Amino acid sequence: MNEEKIRQWRADTPGSVQRIHLNNAGAALMPKPVLEAIRAHLSLENQIGGYEAAAMQSDALSGFYQELASLLHAPVSGMAHATSATDAYNRALSSIPFSEGDVILTTQDDYVSNQIAFMELHHRFGVEVKYCGIVPSGGMDLNDLEEKIKRFQPKLVAITHIPTNSGLVQDVEAAGAIIKESGAWYLVDACQSVGQMPLDVAKIGCDFLTGTFRKFLRGPRGVGFLYVSERALHAGLEPLFVDLHGASWSADDVYQLREDAKRFELWERSYALVAGAREACKYANDIGLETIEERVVTLAASLREKLSILPAVRVLDQGAKLSGIVTMDFSKKLDPNWLIAELRCHRVNASVTFMEYARFDLARKDAAWIVRFSPHYYNTEAELDKAVALVDRLVG
Amino acid sequence: MNEEKIRQWRADTPGSVQRIHLNNAGAALMPKPVLEAIRAHLSLENQIGGYEAAAMQSDALSGFYQELASLLHAPVSGMAHATSATDAYNRALSSIPFSEGDVILTTQDDYVSNQIAFMELHHRFGVEVKYCGIVPSGGMDLNDLEEKIKRFQPKLVAITHIPTNSGLVQDVEAAGAIIKESGAWYLVDACQSVGQMPLDVAKIGCDFLTGTFRKFLRGPRGVGFLYVSERALHAGLEPLFVDLHGASWSADDVYQLREDAKRFELWERSYALVAGAREACKYANDIGLETIEERVVTLAASLREKLSILPAVRVLDQGAKLSGIVTMDFSKKLDPNWLIAELRCHRVNASVTFMEYARFDLARKDAAWIVRFSPHYYNTEAELDKAVALVDRLVG
Repeated sequence: MNEEKIRQWRADTPGSVQRIHLNNAGAALMPKPVLEAIRAHLSLENQIGGYEAAAMQSDALSGFYQELASLLHAPVSGMAHATSATDAYNRALSSIPFSEGDVILTTQDDYVSNQIAFMELHHRFGVEVKYCGIVPSGGMDLNDLEEKIKRFQPKLVAITHIPTNSGLVQDVEAAGAIIKESGAWYLVDACQSVGQMPLDVAKIGCDFLTGTFRKFLRGPRGVGFLYVSERALHAGLEPLFVDLHGASWSADDVYQLREDAKRFELWERSYALVAGAREACKYANDIGLETIEERVVTLAASLREKLSILPAVRVLDQGAKLSGIVTMDFSKKLDPNWLIAELRCHRVNASVTFMEYARFDLARKDAAWIVRFSPHYYNTEAELDKAVALVDRLVG
Repeated sequence: MNEEKIRQWRADTPGSVQRIHLNNAGAALMPKPVLEAIRAHLSLENQIGGYEAAAMQSDALSGFYQELASLLHAPVSGMAHATSATDAYNRALSSIPFSEGDVILTTQDDYVSNQIAFMELHHRFGVEVKYCGIVPSGGMDLNDLEEKIKRFQPKLVAITHIPTNSGLVQDVEAAGAIIKESGAWYLVDACQSVGQMPLDVAKIGCDFLTGTFRKFLRGPRGVGFLYVSERALHAGLEPLFVDLHGASWSADDVYQLREDAKRFELWERSYALVAGAREACKYANDIGLETIEERVVTLAASLREKLSILPAVRVLDQGAKLSGIVTMDFSKKLDPNWLIAELRCHRVNASVTFMEYARFDLARKDAAWIVRFSPHYYNTEAELDKAVALVDRLVG
């Protein structure tokens, strides 16, 4: 890797001077252009008014959709703003008119909030939730996926691309090829993958893909997105609920949906955050997702190697392909909140996943809670060494 | 009104130097402490990380709930964050498990996005939508409300406190007393009333009250709120969908709802905007809502009087009680977009409501579109005079 590039990335990241930020799977540090775009729009709103600022900047703000479409190799008409990945996910999920007995097929590694949403659909509408099996080396069993699709004829297949709680990368493209045959709706949660690796919605073959800006995309908190396929739009899927932006009130008891994915949006949003999210997306597109992925995977692999040497640490990540998320368990009895606080005191940012956030995975790995380190391309090997030395001192 | 107070309010409002901002029902100009709080939190995030900043500021950020509870005379446990008033409204609406034939009783003056949501519930679940009649002087007919509640036994009564498209203030307290007898859920959209007049959820007697920060509360765009009554919480109402913040995943197929109104929230949000919203709420509480209401009503009444003298203008506001929203129609054929652009060129901010945003009200008033002026307490009589003179020149 070009040292000059790394220097430039770090110069654009003021927070990297103060902290060893290994919590990019939580929220990454924003690069300068992101913060500047947010600040500039807030100032404009303060000077001329919120609606007036949005109107004046409308061309520039539409760059949000263009940069995102370019990132996902998707048409602009398939892009929708959301206020978080969960908001995007909920809006996608709410658009499928489930009836009693309908099946959702998902993975045991799907995100906790998705799992709770599926349970709600079970309670409210009698939807059945089925789980795809796991191969011994980690990750979903594609043969089992195929078999369960045949057996249960699911209305929806929902797969989290990269779980929040492990380094696993699910093979959403191979899954997509299998799902396509069945005609089921296919929803991919890309919250942890977007911004750390190339994504191509056509290759994945999904109907919905959801993500956030604050994580590996390095955007502001409070912005997410939803991709909706032509097939889903054409079928007339609409979220609960559409507002005056997603539809027009055309006769007293009639509303007309708009044709593009913006029918999944709400009208109101923070355009300051939208401007920041656009810059974050542009920043990633400019570096190139292949470059980012190579660097992130290299750093994460290096971190796993360094950690696995420590006798008190058990590195937990499993799977044929691993991401920038590194998770570990400790042989010693520790208080997780104490550990995170100690790490922060020493200027190392990390996070904890508790059992209730990832029941199936943590039970399988026999860990009550785990610590997650998630480096990004602006981190350095020297930072990883310092973080590992600190872990050794705290838990050794 | 104390001239010194007005001077102070305007000194806190940098935008008031540049514009005659009469679009407070769209988005008001933020006072300095709001912008400063947003900027400070964004800087902190940039320095130490998004999750780390939220953790460090958690006590200060909880002031969001306290200021809001104080504003609404409600318990803190009834307060929930939302990303807009519509988001809050949708989450409340989604918590009521409608079945075929259930009735929603609402008003013809309810907000367009609410109307579209009701139509969706009709299409998806067979819910019936009924409308309360209107008295000749404007506003809902409380006798008809009572009668229709008896006749239709609605599952939900939904009333927009102040329509976006007219100066009307609905008597939500008197309605509340009637609804209470019936046991129906009572949802109040206070998007345009919060921040311009005192609100007391106990006096209104509602189960849900939704609002935004960007309008008369003078907060940032992209933040709203939801109040949920003890009755609704106790009955176990939960939105579609709850996430890991609103519930905990307690066994493989079981989740446990949290007891307070935060079960209606999603976990992720922009804490920079939350900090701004808290300051906006505090700013309003510090001035006092009685003071604000008196000033807003006085300015709006004065503006209506000045406008009604112009022969080309027809002032449209009707109702026993009027708000800070002033609406008008013109005898001359004009292009609404041209008019708003001309006003903006002359540094006067206003907005247009088209037929599709308020079908019933505009049809009744025989207006294809209307112009809305919405002064706030920081506006002055001199500004109103300039705006009226400009209207006269443009449409006279």
